[in-house]
Amino acid sequence: MTNPNDESKPENVTQSPPPPVAVDLEGGGGAISNIIRRWKREDLLNRGCLATRGFCFVFSLLAFIIMASNKHGDWKDFDKYEEYNYVLAIAILSTLYSGLQALRQVHQFHTAREFFSRRNLAMIEFLGDQVMAYLLISSASSAVPLTNRMREGADNIFTDSSASAIAMAFFAFFSLAISSLISGYKLSNQSYI
Amino acid sequence: MTNPNDESKPENVTQSPPPPVAVDLEGGGGAISNIIRRWKREDLLNRGCLATRGFCFVFSLLAFIIMASNKHGDWKDFDKYEEYNYVLAIAILSTLYSGLQALRQVHQFHTAREFFSRRNLAMIEFLGDQVMAYLLISSASSAVPLTNRMREGADNIFTDSSASAIAMAFFAFFSLAISSLISGYKLSNQSYI
Repeated sequence: MTNPNDESKPENVTQSPPPPVAVDLEGGGGAISNIIRRWKREDLLNRGCLATRGFCFVFSLLAFIIMASNKHGDWKDFDKYEEYNYVLAIAILSTLYSGLQALRQVHQFHTAREFFSRRNLAMIEFLGDQVMAYLLISSASSAVPLTNRMREGADNIFTDSSASAIAMAFFAFFSLAISSLISGYKLSNQSYI
Repeated sequence: MTNPNDESKPENVTQSPPPPVAVDLEGGGGAISNIIRRWKREDLLNRGCLATRGFCFVFSLLAFIIMASNKHGDWKDFDKYEEYNYVLAIAILSTLYSGLQALRQVHQFHTAREFFSRRNLAMIEFLGDQVMAYLLISSASSAVPLTNRMREGADNIFTDSSASAIAMAFFAFFSLAISSLISGYKLSNQSYI
Protein backbone atom coordinates (compact mmCIF):
# COMPACT_ATOMS: atom_id res chain seq x y z
CA MET A 1 0.00 0.00 0.00
CA THR A 2 2.78 2.46 0.92
CA ASN A 3 5.08 1.24 -1.88
CA PRO A 4 5.04 3.91 -4.61
CA ASN A 5 6.54 1.54 -7.19
CA ASP A 6 3.58 -0.80 -7.09
CA GLU A 7 2.19 -0.52 -10.60
CA SER A 8 -1.08 -2.27 -9.81
CA LYS A 9 -2.32 0.85 -7.95
CA PRO A 10 -3.12 3.53 -10.55
CA GLU A 11 -4.13 6.07 -7.85
CA ASN A 12 -0.52 6.18 -6.60
CA VAL A 13 0.98 7.09 -9.98
CA THR A 14 0.99 10.85 -9.35
CA GLN A 15 3.02 10.42 -6.13
CA SER A 16 5.61 8.04 -7.57
CA PRO A 17 8.74 9.20 -9.41
CA PRO A 18 8.35 8.81 -13.18
CA PRO A 19 10.00 5.50 -14.05
CA PRO A 20 6.96 4.27 -16.04
CA VAL A 21 7.14 7.35 -18.28
CA ALA A 22 10.82 6.72 -18.86
CA VAL A 23 10.10 3.08 -19.67
CA ASP A 24 7.40 4.19 -22.10
CA LEU A 25 9.76 6.64 -23.79
CA GLU A 26 12.38 3.95 -24.17
CA GLY A 27 9.85 1.62 -25.69
CA GLY A 28 8.66 4.26 -28.17
CA GLY A 29 11.94 5.88 -29.19
CA GLY A 30 14.21 2.87 -28.78
CA ALA A 31 15.21 2.60 -32.41
CA ILE A 32 16.09 6.27 -32.73
CA SER A 33 18.05 6.46 -29.49
CA ASN A 34 19.84 3.29 -30.52
CA ILE A 35 20.90 4.84 -33.80
CA ILE A 36 22.01 8.06 -32.08
CA ARG A 37 24.01 6.07 -29.53
CA ARG A 38 25.63 4.11 -32.35
CA TRP A 39 26.52 7.34 -34.18
CA LYS A 40 28.05 8.78 -31.01
CA ARG A 41 30.04 5.61 -30.42
CA GLU A 42 31.30 5.56 -34.02
CA ASP A 43 32.27 9.20 -33.75
CA LEU A 44 34.16 8.49 -30.52
CA LEU A 45 35.91 5.52 -32.14
CA ASN A 46 36.90 7.61 -35.14
CA ARG A 47 38.29 10.33 -32.90
CA GLY A 48 40.18 7.76 -30.82
CA CYS A 49 41.63 6.24 -33.98
CA LEU A 50 42.68 9.68 -35.23
CA ALA A 51 44.28 10.53 -31.87
CA THR A 52 46.30 7.29 -31.70
CA ARG A 53 47.44 7.76 -35.30
CA GLY A 54 48.43 11.34 -34.49
CA PHE A 55 50.49 10.11 -31.54
CA CYS A 56 52.06 7.43 -33.71
CA PHE A 57 52.95 10.09 -36.32
CA VAL A 58 54.59 12.34 -33.71
CA PHE A 59 56.53 9.51 -32.07
CA SER A 60 57.79 7.98 -35.30
CA LEU A 61 58.76 11.40 -36.63
CA LEU A 62 60.75 11.93 -33.42
CA ALA A 63 62.37 8.50 -33.76
CA PHE A 64 63.26 9.30 -37.37
CA ILE A 65 64.77 12.72 -36.57
CA ILE A 66 66.70 11.56 -33.50
CA MET A 67 68.11 8.52 -35.27
CA ALA A 68 68.94 10.38 -38.50
CA SER A 69 70.84 13.10 -36.62
CA ASN A 70 72.76 10.52 -34.58
CA LYS A 71 76.16 10.94 -36.29
CA HIS A 72 79.11 11.87 -34.11
CA GLY A 73 82.03 10.52 -36.17
CA ASP A 74 84.24 7.45 -35.73
CA TRP A 75 82.30 4.44 -34.37
CA LYS A 76 79.50 6.77 -33.22
CA ASP A 77 77.64 6.77 -36.55
CA PHE A 78 74.24 5.18 -36.64
CA ASP A 79 74.74 3.94 -40.21
CA LYS A 80 77.56 1.60 -39.14
CA TYR A 81 75.00 -0.62 -37.34
CA GLU A 82 72.32 -2.49 -39.25
CA GLU A 83 69.90 -2.42 -36.28
CA TYR A 84 69.90 1.37 -36.25
CA ASN A 85 69.43 1.48 -40.02
CA TYR A 86 66.43 -0.82 -39.55
CA VAL A 87 64.97 1.47 -36.86
CA LEU A 88 65.44 4.47 -39.15
CA ALA A 89 63.82 2.77 -42.15
CA ILE A 90 60.80 1.62 -40.17
CA ALA A 91 60.46 5.03 -38.50
CA ILE A 92 60.29 6.65 -41.95
CA LEU A 93 57.72 4.10 -43.15
CA SER A 94 55.63 4.51 -40.03
CA THR A 95 55.76 8.32 -40.26
CA LEU A 96 54.48 8.14 -43.83
CA TYR A 97 51.80 5.56 -43.02
CA SER A 98 50.34 7.22 -39.94
CA GLY A 99 50.60 10.70 -41.48
CA LEU A 100 48.73 9.61 -44.61
CA GLN A 101 46.09 7.74 -42.58
CA ALA A 102 45.53 10.75 -40.31
CA LEU A 103 45.30 13.09 -43.33
CA ARG A 104 42.78 10.79 -45.00
CA GLN A 105 40.70 10.68 -41.84
CA VAL A 106 40.71 14.47 -41.40
CA HIS A 107 39.82 14.89 -45.07
CA GLN A 108 36.96 12.44 -44.60
CA PHE A 109 35.67 14.36 -41.55
CA HIS A 110 35.55 17.57 -43.60
CA THR A 111 34.15 16.36 -46.89
CA ALA A 112 32.26 13.24 -45.75
CA ARG A 113 33.45 11.54 -48.93
CA GLU A 114 34.86 8.04 -48.86
CA PHE A 115 37.18 6.54 -51.43
CA PHE A 116 36.51 2.94 -50.38
CA SER A 117 33.42 1.23 -49.11
CA ARG A 118 33.17 1.37 -45.33
CA ARG A 119 33.79 -2.36 -44.93
CA ASN A 120 36.86 -2.44 -47.17
CA LEU A 121 38.20 0.64 -45.44
CA ALA A 122 37.92 -0.99 -42.01
CA MET A 123 39.70 -4.08 -43.35
CA ILE A 124 42.50 -2.02 -44.93
CA GLU A 125 42.96 0.06 -41.76
CA PHE A 126 43.08 -3.04 -39.61
CA LEU A 127 45.63 -4.81 -41.82
CA GLY A 128 47.81 -1.71 -42.21
CA ASP A 129 47.85 -1.01 -38.48
CA GLN A 130 48.72 -4.62 -37.73
CA VAL A 131 51.61 -4.83 -40.20
CA MET A 132 53.08 -1.45 -39.19
CA ALA A 133 52.82 -2.39 -35.49
CA TYR A 134 54.68 -5.67 -36.16
CA LEU A 135 57.40 -3.81 -38.06
CA LEU A 136 57.77 -1.17 -35.33
CA ILE A 137 58.12 -3.62 -32.46
CA SER A 138 60.48 -5.77 -34.53
CA SER A 139 62.79 -2.85 -35.30
CA ALA A 140 62.71 -1.46 -31.76
CA SER A 141 63.40 -4.77 -30.07
CA SER A 142 66.17 -5.68 -32.51
CA ALA A 143 68.05 -2.49 -31.57
CA VAL A 144 67.69 -2.85 -27.79
CA PRO A 145 70.44 -5.48 -27.10
CA LEU A 146 73.12 -3.61 -29.08
CA THR A 147 72.39 -0.38 -27.21
CA ASN A 148 72.38 -2.19 -23.86
CA ARG A 149 75.78 -3.72 -24.60
CA MET A 150 77.23 -0.36 -25.71
CA ARG A 151 75.98 1.36 -22.57
CA GLU A 152 77.71 -1.21 -20.41
CA GLY A 153 81.02 0.06 -21.82
CA ALA A 154 80.44 3.77 -22.31
CA ASP A 155 77.54 6.15 -21.77
CA ASN A 156 77.79 9.02 -24.20
CA ILE A 157 75.62 11.17 -26.47
CA PHE A 158 75.54 8.47 -29.17
CA THR A 159 74.11 5.73 -26.95
CA ASP A 160 71.73 8.20 -25.31
CA SER A 161 70.36 9.33 -28.67
CA SER A 162 69.98 5.71 -29.83
CA ALA A 163 68.15 4.82 -26.63
CA SER A 164 65.75 7.75 -27.00
CA ALA A 165 65.08 6.92 -30.66
CA ILE A 166 64.30 3.33 -29.65
CA ALA A 167 62.00 4.57 -26.88
CA MET A 168 60.16 6.75 -29.41
CA ALA A 169 59.78 3.73 -31.71
CA PHE A 170 58.29 1.78 -28.78
CA PHE A 171 55.85 4.61 -28.03
CA ALA A 172 54.87 4.68 -31.71
CA PHE A 173 54.30 0.92 -31.51
CA PHE A 174 52.05 1.29 -28.47
CA SER A 175 49.97 3.98 -30.19
CA LEU A 176 49.62 1.86 -33.29
CA ALA A 177 48.76 -1.27 -31.27
CA ILE A 178 45.92 0.63 -29.60
CA SER A 179 44.86 1.95 -33.00
CA SER A 180 44.84 -1.60 -34.38
CA LEU A 181 42.67 -2.72 -31.44
CA ILE A 182 40.27 0.12 -32.20
CA SER A 183 40.16 -0.79 -35.87
CA GLY A 184 39.51 -4.40 -34.89
CA TYR A 185 36.66 -3.19 -32.69
CA LYS A 186 35.36 -1.02 -35.54
CA LEU A 187 35.42 -4.10 -37.80
CA SER A 188 33.33 -5.95 -35.24
CA ASN A 189 30.78 -3.15 -34.92
CA GLN A 190 30.00 -2.50 -38.55
CA SER A 191 26.65 -0.86 -39.00
CA TYR A 192 24.88 -2.57 -41.86
CA ILE A 193 22.25 0.18 -42.05
CA MET B 1 14.93 -19.06 -83.62
CA THR B 2 17.74 -21.56 -83.25
CA ASN B 3 18.96 -20.03 -79.93
CA PRO B 4 17.81 -22.37 -77.10
CA ASN B 5 18.45 -19.67 -74.44
CA ASP B 6 15.85 -17.26 -75.85
CA GLU B 7 13.30 -17.03 -73.02
CA SER B 8 10.61 -15.21 -75.05
CA LYS B 9 9.76 -18.51 -76.82
CA PRO B 10 7.84 -20.72 -74.39
CA GLU B 11 7.79 -23.64 -76.88
CA ASN B 12 11.59 -23.89 -76.48
CA VAL B 13 11.53 -24.31 -72.70
CA THR B 14 11.74 -28.11 -72.81
CA GLN B 15 14.93 -27.92 -74.88
CA SER B 16 16.67 -25.31 -72.68
CA PRO B 17 18.57 -26.15 -69.47
CA PRO B 18 16.59 -25.34 -66.29
CA PRO B 19 17.90 -21.96 -65.08
CA PRO B 20 14.41 -20.54 -64.22
CA VAL B 21 13.81 -23.39 -61.75
CA ALA B 22 17.14 -22.70 -60.05
CA VAL B 23 16.33 -18.99 -59.80
CA ASP B 24 12.97 -19.84 -58.25
CA LEU B 25 14.60 -22.14 -55.67
CA GLU B 26 17.05 -19.42 -54.70
CA GLY B 27 14.28 -16.93 -54.29
CA GLY B 28 12.28 -19.28 -52.08
CA GLY B 29 15.01 -20.70 -49.85
CA GLY B 30 17.22 -17.60 -49.63
CA ALA B 31 17.11 -17.21 -45.86
CA ILE B 32 17.83 -20.87 -45.18
CA SER B 33 20.64 -21.10 -47.71
CA ASN B 34 22.06 -17.90 -46.22
CA ILE B 35 22.11 -19.42 -42.76
CA ILE B 36 23.65 -22.65 -44.05
CA ARG B 37 26.29 -20.67 -45.92
CA ARG B 38 27.05 -18.71 -42.74
CA TRP B 39 27.37 -21.94 -40.73
CA LYS B 40 29.72 -23.40 -43.32
CA ARG B 41 31.83 -20.24 -43.29
CA GLU B 42 31.98 -20.21 -39.49
CA ASP B 43 32.98 -23.85 -39.47
CA LEU B 44 35.72 -23.14 -42.02
CA LEU B 45 36.94 -20.19 -39.95
CA ASN B 46 37.02 -22.30 -36.80
CA ARG B 47 38.98 -25.03 -38.55
CA GLY B 48 41.38 -22.46 -39.99
CA CYS B 49 41.88 -20.96 -36.55
CA LEU B 50 42.52 -24.39 -35.07
CA ALA B 51 45.00 -25.25 -37.83
CA THR B 52 47.00 -22.03 -37.40
CA ARG B 53 47.06 -22.50 -33.61
CA GLY B 54 48.23 -26.07 -34.10
CA PHE B 55 51.06 -24.86 -36.35
CA CYS B 56 51.94 -22.20 -33.80
CA PHE B 57 52.03 -24.85 -31.07
CA VAL B 58 54.34 -27.12 -33.08
CA PHE B 59 56.69 -24.32 -34.10
CA SER B 60 56.96 -22.79 -30.63
CA LEU B 61 57.49 -26.21 -29.08
CA LEU B 62 60.32 -26.76 -31.57
CA ALA B 63 61.80 -23.34 -30.78
CA PHE B 64 61.59 -24.14 -27.07
CA ILE B 65 63.25 -27.58 -27.40
CA ILE B 66 65.98 -26.44 -29.78
CA MET B 67 66.83 -23.40 -27.67
CA ALA B 68 66.71 -25.26 -24.35
CA SER B 69 69.05 -27.99 -25.60
CA ASN B 70 71.48 -25.44 -27.00
CA LYS B 71 74.22 -25.89 -24.38
CA HIS B 72 77.68 -26.84 -25.61
CA GLY B 73 79.90 -25.53 -22.80
CA ASP B 74 82.17 -22.48 -22.55
CA TRP B 75 80.73 -19.44 -24.43
CA LYS B 76 78.38 -21.75 -26.34
CA ASP B 77 75.61 -21.73 -23.70
CA PHE B 78 72.33 -20.12 -24.59
CA ASP B 79 71.80 -18.87 -21.02
CA LYS B 80 74.82 -16.56 -21.23
CA TYR B 81 72.92 -14.32 -23.68
CA GLU B 82 69.83 -12.42 -22.62
CA GLU B 83 68.37 -12.47 -26.16
CA TYR B 84 68.34 -16.27 -26.20
CA ASN B 85 66.77 -16.37 -22.74
CA TYR B 86 64.07 -14.05 -24.05
CA VAL B 87 63.45 -16.32 -27.05
CA LEU B 88 63.20 -19.33 -24.73
CA ALA B 89 60.79 -17.62 -22.33
CA ILE B 90 58.49 -16.44 -25.09
CA ALA B 91 58.62 -19.85 -26.79
CA ILE B 92 57.43 -21.48 -23.54
CA LEU B 93 54.65 -18.89 -23.14
CA SER B 94 53.55 -19.30 -26.74
CA THR B 95 53.58 -23.11 -26.49
CA LEU B 96 51.32 -22.92 -23.44
CA TYR B 97 49.02 -20.31 -24.97
CA SER B 98 48.51 -21.98 -28.35
CA GLY B 99 48.26 -25.45 -26.80
CA LEU B 100 45.57 -24.35 -24.36
CA GLN B 101 43.66 -22.47 -27.04
CA ALA B 102 43.77 -25.47 -29.40
CA LEU B 103 42.65 -27.81 -26.57
CA ARG B 104 39.77 -25.48 -25.70
CA GLN B 105 38.70 -25.38 -29.35
CA VAL B 106 38.82 -29.17 -29.76
CA HIS B 107 36.90 -29.58 -26.50
CA GLN B 108 34.31 -27.12 -27.79
CA PHE B 109 33.95 -29.02 -31.07
CA HIS B 110 33.24 -32.25 -29.17
CA THR B 111 30.95 -31.03 -26.40
CA ALA B 112 29.50 -27.88 -28.02
CA ARG B 113 29.73 -26.22 -24.61
CA GLU B 114 31.13 -22.72 -24.29
CA PHE B 115 32.63 -21.23 -21.16
CA PHE B 116 32.29 -17.64 -22.34
CA SER B 117 29.70 -15.91 -24.43
CA ARG B 118 30.56 -16.03 -28.11
CA ARG B 119 31.27 -12.30 -28.33
CA ASN B 120 33.56 -12.24 -25.29
CA LEU B 121 35.35 -15.31 -26.57
CA ALA B 122 36.05 -13.69 -29.93
CA MET B 123 37.39 -10.60 -28.13
CA ILE B 124 39.63 -12.68 -25.82
CA GLU B 125 40.97 -14.76 -28.72
CA PHE B 126 41.70 -11.65 -30.74
CA LEU B 127 43.52 -9.91 -27.86
CA GLY B 128 45.50 -13.02 -26.88
CA ASP B 129 46.60 -13.73 -30.44
CA GLN B 130 47.67 -10.12 -30.90
CA VAL B 131 49.72 -9.94 -27.71
CA MET B 132 51.41 -13.31 -28.27
CA ALA B 133 52.23 -12.37 -31.87
CA TYR B 134 53.84 -9.12 -30.68
CA LEU B 135 55.89 -10.99 -28.08
CA LEU B 136 57.00 -13.63 -30.58
CA ILE B 137 58.19 -11.18 -33.22
CA SER B 138 59.86 -9.05 -30.57
CA SER B 139 61.84 -11.99 -29.16
CA ALA B 140 62.79 -13.38 -32.57
CA SER B 141 63.94 -10.07 -33.98
CA SER B 142 65.90 -9.19 -30.85
CA ALA B 143 67.94 -12.40 -31.20
CA VAL B 144 68.70 -12.03 -34.91
CA PRO B 145 71.54 -9.42 -34.79
CA LEU B 146 73.50 -11.31 -32.12
CA THR B 147 73.34 -14.53 -34.13
CA ASN B 148 74.32 -12.72 -37.33
CA ARG B 149 77.37 -11.23 -35.63
CA MET B 150 78.39 -14.59 -34.16
CA ARG B 151 78.11 -16.31 -37.51
CA GLU B 152 80.43 -13.75 -39.08
CA GLY B 153 83.17 -15.05 -36.78
CA ALA B 154 82.45 -18.76 -36.49
CA ASP B 155 79.82 -21.11 -37.86
CA ASN B 156 79.33 -24.00 -35.46
CA ILE B 157 76.58 -26.10 -33.91
CA PHE B 158 75.72 -23.40 -31.35
CA THR B 159 75.04 -20.66 -33.89
CA ASP B 160 73.21 -23.10 -36.16
CA SER B 161 70.90 -24.22 -33.35
CA SER B 162 70.23 -20.61 -32.33
CA ALA B 163 69.42 -19.70 -35.92
CA SER B 164 67.00 -22.61 -36.28
CA ALA B 165 65.29 -21.78 -32.96
CA ILE B 166 64.87 -18.18 -34.15
CA ALA B 167 63.47 -19.40 -37.47
CA MET B 168 60.94 -21.57 -35.58
CA ALA B 169 59.95 -18.54 -33.48
CA PHE B 170 59.38 -16.60 -36.72
CA PHE B 171 57.24 -19.40 -38.14
CA ALA B 172 55.23 -19.47 -34.91
CA PHE B 173 54.78 -15.71 -35.25
CA PHE B 174 53.49 -16.06 -38.82
CA SER B 175 50.99 -18.74 -37.78
CA LEU B 176 49.78 -16.60 -34.91
CA ALA B 177 49.57 -13.48 -37.08
CA ILE B 178 47.31 -15.36 -39.51
CA SER B 179 45.31 -16.69 -36.56
CA SER B 180 44.91 -13.14 -35.24
CA LEU B 181 43.69 -12.00 -38.68
CA ILE B 182 41.14 -14.84 -38.66
CA SER B 183 39.97 -13.92 -35.16
CA GLY B 184 39.67 -10.30 -36.30
CA TYR B 185 37.56 -11.50 -39.24
CA LYS B 186 35.48 -13.66 -36.88
CA LEU B 187 34.90 -10.60 -34.69
CA SER B 188 33.65 -8.73 -37.74
CA ASN B 189 31.31 -11.54 -38.80
CA GLN B 190 29.50 -12.18 -35.55
CA SER B 191 26.15 -13.78 -36.12
CA TYR B 192 23.61 -12.06 -33.91
CA ILE B 193 21.04 -14.79 -34.53
